[in-house]
Amino acid sequence: MKLMRVGPAGQEKPAALDSDGKVRDLSGHVPDIAGAAISPENLAKLAALDLKSLPELQVDRIGPCVAGTGKFICIGLNYSDHAAETGATVPPEPIIFMKATSAIVGPNDNVVIPRDSEKTDWEVELGVVIGKTAKYVSEDEAMDYVAGYCLTNDVSERAYQSERAGQWTKGKSCDTFGPIGPWLVTKDEVADPQNLAMWLTVNGEKMQNGSTKTMVYGVRHLVSYLSQFMSLHPGDIISTGTPPGVGLGMKPQRFLKPGDVVELGIEGLGTQKQTFVADR
Amino acid sequence: MKLMRVGPAGQEKPAALDSDGKVRDLSGHVPDIAGAAISPENLAKLAALDLKSLPELQVDRIGPCVAGTGKFICIGLNYSDHAAETGATVPPEPIIFMKATSAIVGPNDNVVIPRDSEKTDWEVELGVVIGKTAKYVSEDEAMDYVAGYCLTNDVSERAYQSERAGQWTKGKSCDTFGPIGPWLVTKDEVADPQNLAMWLTVNGEKMQNGSTKTMVYGVRHLVSYLSQFMSLHPGDIISTGTPPGVGLGMKPQRFLKPGDVVELGIEGLGTQKQTFVADR
Repeated sequence: MKLMRVGPAGQEKPAALDSDGKVRDLSGHVPDIAGAAISPENLAKLAALDLKSLPELQVDRIGPCVAGTGKFICIGLNYSDHAAETGATVPPEPIIFMKATSAIVGPNDNVVIPRDSEKTDWEVELGVVIGKTAKYVSEDEAMDYVAGYCLTNDVSERAYQSERAGQWTKGKSCDTFGPIGPWLVTKDEVADPQNLAMWLTVNGEKMQNGSTKTMVYGVRHLVSYLSQFMSLHPGDIISTGTPPGVGLGMKPQRFLKPGDVVELGIEGLGTQKQTFVADR
Repeated sequence: MKLMRVGPAGQEKPAALDSDGKVRDLSGHVPDIAGAAISPENLAKLAALDLKSLPELQVDRIGPCVAGTGKFICIGLNYSDHAAETGATVPPEPIIFMKATSAIVGPNDNVVIPRDSEKTDWEVELGVVIGKTAKYVSEDEAMDYVAGYCLTNDVSERAYQSERAGQWTKGKSCDTFGPIGPWLVTKDEVADPQNLAMWLTVNGEKMQNGSTKTMVYGVRHLVSYLSQFMSLHPGDIISTGTPPGVGLGMKPQRFLKPGDVVELGIEGLGTQKQTFVADR
């Protein structure tokens, strides 16, 4: 299934894409795409629905594909060639940092460049959405706790991240820096999360062109690894790192300006398109 | 007012302490101590209540003093003498990191030492609770966005924090590592947040004995500073750093073992008492 949330910000309805590409209203079946609604048991119930019998929704806006996210955990330097372009080496175990959940927006919402930002950058990433509380789970059982996948843009302000006194979260948590969606694609529709093409363009120019197969620490490992430190809860998102091609790694470096349009996609997970705008 | 939440985990009722130290039920007036209930306007309404006319609650357990926390933001190395004891220098601007909100527990709940932890440590801190959405606010207006204060223990696993591949959040976010409360003390009851005595004992032995007057970046500055990077929302908590006396800074270093009892307090904000236990 391709689950989604459509409607004005804060008033999204839960929905699913049918096989004809029409958006069907799930609000008679789940209160939202969140929490218990994305448990394995409930996803099985939703999968048994005849989507085409449900009301069709007109889509003016697509919201974030999952609500009630308690943790937006990001993995740093998780593609060997991206680590190289930023001058870092592959870490001996996953680097984790948090993106504020208040940064989450819909996949095509405007992204606001903070007032004094000069180094706003892009990062196409595979997001993993947790469906069931995970604590101390092994790699073998890790996939039992995954509801599915989504496309994420881990928008990053590089000066805030690295030049403003320690800890990356400062450059990762600005409002609108977390577009997710368009869909939460349930895991049954993704044959191999470690073999998905991914790309990102700025004003139509290809910047990132990679594949999740060059990910250093894969999805199974990350879910298991993180669960050794903390419980993962339904709706939590793990953004698994970005392949090469970010602005920070270019010579000369290149960052986003108001009016720039960023488009990105991952095979099977849909696309996003954001206009970057100045803060008012 | 001293606002609190009492009852079993996940089923807490909103309450307030009256002038006789009795706990009064606020559930007829607010759904929870969270979100709009702690706005300046609503706090004024609550302040006008005759608490002694409200039903008294028996207290078997005190829960976290605020619910619906979207961000648990911590400030690193924010006491000059604590920075010195850890071998660090005072940062040129605040260091911020995130503690997972899934770590939040009540002030007297057990704290679980993770399975392979050898360096679980304590940190008494002044917590600031946001009452109104703040973005790009000046220091002069910063206090308008603060609902009040609470006691926090920023429990930290030092090996996870610093020896397991970058970014402190890994050692700060373990389940139960965020005791908050007992009370959200509204700001009108705290004459000067930069002049509060604070202390922490382990098994009755005094470890930390400081004052918020040695804080490097004060509450006004922190609220204003953080709001330049991201919106702060009602229920968000800023934990403002710890004075000297943590286990990491001792010679030899000293960390917590199952059975250890940690007690802590800040002048006017109440006390906490946690038993540290092994993970089952």
